[in-house]
Amino acid sequence: MPNTTKYSVETIPGGYPRDRIFNPKSVAVMGVTPTPGTVPYDIFYNILASGYKGVLYPVAPGKRSISAVPAYRYLTDIEDDIDLVVIVFPANVVARALEQCGEKGVKGVIIISAGFREVGPEGEKREEEIKEICAKYDISLVGPNCLGVINTDPKIMLNASFARKMPAEGRIAFLSQSGALCTAVLDYARSRNIGFSKFVSFGNKAGVTEMGLLDYLHQDEQTDVVLLYLEELRDGRALIETARRVTRGDNPKPILAIKSGRTPQGADAASSHTGSLAGEDAICEAVFSEAGIIRTNTIEELFDTAIMLTSQPMPKGDRLAIVTNAGGPGVMATDAAVDVGLTIARFQPETTKKLKASLPAAANMKNPVDVIGDARSDRYEAAVGAVLEDPNVDQALVILTPQSMTDIEQIAHGIVKVRKGTDKPMACSFIGATDVAVGVDILQAAHIPHYIMPEWACGAMADVQRIRRWRELPEEADYQPPQADQKAVAAIINPAPAGYLSEDRALAVLEAYGFPVPAHKLCCDADEAVEFAERNGYPAVLRVVSPQIVHKFDVKGVALDLADADAVRSAYNNMVSHIGEAMPEAEIKGVLVRGMIPGGREVILGAKHDAAFGPTLMFGLGGLFVEIFKDVTFALAPITPAAASRMVRQIKAFKLLEGARGTGQADIAGVEDYLLRLGRLVVDFERIVELDINPLIVGPAGEGSNVADVRIRLSE
Amino acid sequence: MPNTTKYSVETIPGGYPRDRIFNPKSVAVMGVTPTPGTVPYDIFYNILASGYKGVLYPVAPGKRSISAVPAYRYLTDIEDDIDLVVIVFPANVVARALEQCGEKGVKGVIIISAGFREVGPEGEKREEEIKEICAKYDISLVGPNCLGVINTDPKIMLNASFARKMPAEGRIAFLSQSGALCTAVLDYARSRNIGFSKFVSFGNKAGVTEMGLLDYLHQDEQTDVVLLYLEELRDGRALIETARRVTRGDNPKPILAIKSGRTPQGADAASSHTGSLAGEDAICEAVFSEAGIIRTNTIEELFDTAIMLTSQPMPKGDRLAIVTNAGGPGVMATDAAVDVGLTIARFQPETTKKLKASLPAAANMKNPVDVIGDARSDRYEAAVGAVLEDPNVDQALVILTPQSMTDIEQIAHGIVKVRKGTDKPMACSFIGATDVAVGVDILQAAHIPHYIMPEWACGAMADVQRIRRWRELPEEADYQPPQADQKAVAAIINPAPAGYLSEDRALAVLEAYGFPVPAHKLCCDADEAVEFAERNGYPAVLRVVSPQIVHKFDVKGVALDLADADAVRSAYNNMVSHIGEAMPEAEIKGVLVRGMIPGGREVILGAKHDAAFGPTLMFGLGGLFVEIFKDVTFALAPITPAAASRMVRQIKAFKLLEGARGTGQADIAGVEDYLLRLGRLVVDFERIVELDINPLIVGPAGEGSNVADVRIRLSE
Repeated sequence: MPNTTKYSVETIPGGYPRDRIFNPKSVAVMGVTPTPGTVPYDIFYNILASGYKGVLYPVAPGKRSISAVPAYRYLTDIEDDIDLVVIVFPANVVARALEQCGEKGVKGVIIISAGFREVGPEGEKREEEIKEICAKYDISLVGPNCLGVINTDPKIMLNASFARKMPAEGRIAFLSQSGALCTAVLDYARSRNIGFSKFVSFGNKAGVTEMGLLDYLHQDEQTDVVLLYLEELRDGRALIETARRVTRGDNPKPILAIKSGRTPQGADAASSHTGSLAGEDAICEAVFSEAGIIRTNTIEELFDTAIMLTSQPMPKGDRLAIVTNAGGPGVMATDAAVDVGLTIARFQPETTKKLKASLPAAANMKNPVDVIGDARSDRYEAAVGAVLEDPNVDQALVILTPQSMTDIEQIAHGIVKVRKGTDKPMACSFIGATDVAVGVDILQAAHIPHYIMPEWACGAMADVQRIRRWRELPEEADYQPPQADQKAVAAIINPAPAGYLSEDRALAVLEAYGFPVPAHKLCCDADEAVEFAERNGYPAVLRVVSPQIVHKFDVKGVALDLADADAVRSAYNNMVSHIGEAMPEAEIKGVLVRGMIPGGREVILGAKHDAAFGPTLMFGLGGLFVEIFKDVTFALAPITPAAASRMVRQIKAFKLLEGARGTGQADIAGVEDYLLRLGRLVVDFERIVELDINPLIVGPAGEGSNVADVRIRLSE
Repeated sequence: MPNTTKYSVETIPGGYPRDRIFNPKSVAVMGVTPTPGTVPYDIFYNILASGYKGVLYPVAPGKRSISAVPAYRYLTDIEDDIDLVVIVFPANVVARALEQCGEKGVKGVIIISAGFREVGPEGEKREEEIKEICAKYDISLVGPNCLGVINTDPKIMLNASFARKMPAEGRIAFLSQSGALCTAVLDYARSRNIGFSKFVSFGNKAGVTEMGLLDYLHQDEQTDVVLLYLEELRDGRALIETARRVTRGDNPKPILAIKSGRTPQGADAASSHTGSLAGEDAICEAVFSEAGIIRTNTIEELFDTAIMLTSQPMPKGDRLAIVTNAGGPGVMATDAAVDVGLTIARFQPETTKKLKASLPAAANMKNPVDVIGDARSDRYEAAVGAVLEDPNVDQALVILTPQSMTDIEQIAHGIVKVRKGTDKPMACSFIGATDVAVGVDILQAAHIPHYIMPEWACGAMADVQRIRRWRELPEEADYQPPQADQKAVAAIINPAPAGYLSEDRALAVLEAYGFPVPAHKLCCDADEAVEFAERNGYPAVLRVVSPQIVHKFDVKGVALDLADADAVRSAYNNMVSHIGEAMPEAEIKGVLVRGMIPGGREVILGAKHDAAFGPTLMFGLGGLFVEIFKDVTFALAPITPAAASRMVRQIKAFKLLEGARGTGQADIAGVEDYLLRLGRLVVDFERIVELDINPLIVGPAGEGSNVADVRIRLSE
């Protein structure tokens, strides 16, 4: 487990929600109208009808009452203290309403109204204004441009949203940047008997952020799992740090997230509707996984996994037993389990013996266990019980198809009975719809997760494994960050203009941070080049240095394998004169002379300032592997030694570094060390927006590596 | 489009079902019992209750009637001609019942009973016996060990199965090897309002096969799409040939198939329950796609695509327009569409103008079109109408989330109206469950495909694109198979024992089939080797030839880059003496001498006799690409020139052959030609069970290639 990164972020003021937003003793709705079917009325009515346990005040200028509840002209007319105000006024009067909240000492506000940042410059100005008012009065704000907040806690029962119905109580919290998605999710979840603890549409997150909500829900006793829908990562790094806190430690809670806009076209669509700037999705994918966030692509997968997490114990391992009354679905479930990385359990002989005693001879006693088509509940109970008692089994998936003899109801009851006698997790898939419904109801009432198709169950179980492995990563001891000569680098970078550093400077930067830079010298004439080569040894390499030349090979700016002084001299003169003719505008600062680098395995170490996450690192095997197979990994900078080790091992081509095809092991430890150094470098110097060591040529284990080429680009 | 392969298969006798199995004028059920809830009774009762239009006779020894229908002691007691007999007797008396069918002249029989091949040797014997009886009397047999047959044609209305309910009428035929799966599928399909034309559980396929059923359904006027669930490919090649016939031509019908047992563990599970032998799944995947079969992994995807195919016209291209009332789901749908390879349409200016005229300013007029949360049916109608009229749009996906203002019912009606005015396909996703149900019902009644999640719609649309592209592949003219000296190869292979051919023989085989084999000679002493090298030129290569040595490098059986006569002589002597000491049991037949092969790109051409498909070809880039990235393609042998071209282009590393990284184009035409030759060779000589040209070193375009190493393994 990585330590929380040393690259710390300022907490956004107001990001953490005050408790009174979820648990207010009194609520006022500002801007209520008496017309059902409009947002201003519906919000008010939803609070009223949801069974809210506190006191509710409509603020509706010009009305005596709303739905029989006495109405107030101004917020300040209310004598009671108000914990939470919900503002549903049109955008142009929201600021005024917010001022009134501040004056009355209200500390919790939800702004439902749209018409802010999402509509362009004018809305942005409005949003800045409400941010200032919140800061002035220390108001905890949810929204604007959101659906509202729901708390199903029976002690509160607050539906301060324009969702049509109050969801059932449950252990899942749902946070969404998209308000419209919420209505669909609530309707869908109801059909799967899924309840919620809290439901928050956080909209433009002008005040309360997803980070603040995660920290709040981490402490919330009603919540076991947090689901998050995001379109925009305004502060990806803060999200990652928060997630690392929430998903591990003494009180770990899983976070499952959809981050849409994964594809360039999707990101375009998202940005046209949130005004957000998209980072690179491959980085997001890698970084989420290094923060314990389970990323899913669909709403279904989100809930498939959440119902497993909220109802079943954490399995001890990944070994799955399958019990089915139909061979075909058993085979399909086995395929699906293997696809997602689960292990098909091998039973102990004792289990096989038990199965043989209770199943007919034609049954399959191996995993997947087939109790065959005419199985009734006795067989299911015996088989499921036997496999769950097997120490080689960590969890079970029970499949049922509705055949003539299948006593679906009894089988469901039998499974519930077995479930009570075990501490291992279980999921069921009664395939079908109407015929199996009676059984599904029984299972769901007993909190046994049910999936219409076994493939969904396998997907959920695989996500649970990811969470288990994440929690089991050992804590890392504090480590010494690599030594580095920051002063030397500051002297190079601080005065440099935006754009690429020249090669000699870039090499000097790397040298100061302990990278294996071969001996070299920037020479200004052929004599100097020959003199250095004589001292440094042959064969020699010449590389032109010019601010106008980024791709040296393209202009014959590189000469390799020069065997002696004559060769160096003539290569130098040819190079300078060729470039002088071909690129008269190029200012040649000199020619870098160095020795040939011995062959080895080529890797790329990269760093990039990502729009969402700030400084990130990239690692891959050189050339084809990156270009054709996109076989690369990413991480947030800086990284810990354990994270560096994972990073190197995640690429498929790692086998090559390990010594596939009889090449012997490469100096992997060195590569990990350089990733650590690179991480420190780009965090220390934020002006580095892009850095590529391409390639680093890696020698055999223990023999070190050599930087063969580097490019460093600085921002303004 | 490939011609149907020249490697033709005998049609399995009895594989094609007689029409009377689906359309019998009279049915007898043999072995009926009077107890509801048992298979023998249920089958009978299902026929009776399904509204069957013909005459039904129960054969139930000792009973006067079953459910008030007069019963018969023996089949032969029935005076009427019987078109179809359904046998539900226990396995041990099935043969006797079948004999009676034969004697009565019955030509169509379904055996529901289990207890045959699937239970081991004893059952296998029983199955052979019934096969013989069918052959003797020319009986068309479905089963044994199956669920039965359903025909929803209103003129017939036959539910000769033990499925609980008759499915609705529809244009989808479902064929399943697994009976148990059928009950689940019927229940599931009912919940999605999916109807069927025919529903066939074909069980052990002792008579009627999936191939015969496909050919039958190809001609069936009630059927538009065939769905197929398979666990075992007993005759994969025949399936492929049938599928190529059915899926293209004048009357093309899509075939969607699940072939389970994709993973080794899944295949194990399948084989323990069908007794089948698994081929390699990657081959199955490639071969299905070259036969126009759309392979899916789940029941859901099967139906997702089928409902699209049976209700919507074929799109002209892959450009998709999305209309949504919620930004988030629009972004997610865009991501999903891109993931599966659809193109996000760019609208013409005219369309944007129309959208601007009918949508509020805050709406998004670009694709995905966001009609925003308060949209009512007028906006949906205008937007969906406008995008479908755009010539840049081939199809539309309409997304709805149930928000306060959303008049779901009216919107559904509006969409139905728009649908009627266009010839472009359309799908909808009203996300949710209860709230949106009223709209979903309206859409489904109008045969507009509906998917709870937009991702499913995208998956279905992508499958439709695959079918479109498959149909659009040009017909190939007959081509001349490559010239080959079959006699020379027969002279080598026919007398050879099972196992590996020696290298000199293997090279001779390749030479006879026109492969680029470098000049070489098998030499028996150092003098002979030197003499040949002198003639052939330096640098020379020596390779030991011994039946005991398969991996020459491991025993220092290869010497490279020998510059002159001395080097050849000493390498020869060293090699022979080293192997003599290290492997005294190895019989050295000589040393093969040849020149060094000039460098180039290394590819692998392989062939293998697959358990399911017979002779197959493999192609990939040498070494790492195959080992680490599994970047290979497969095809059935023989192949056509167009199929060879597709095969070479399907690997990711094809870019390397094309000239990525400035290496220039390789001799791709040559590689295609050698794949054709290899295909012919392994079809001509079935004893070749494995052949690997690894590597073939490919020179620049037009300069040809060289076989650097080859291994050929023969069967008995």
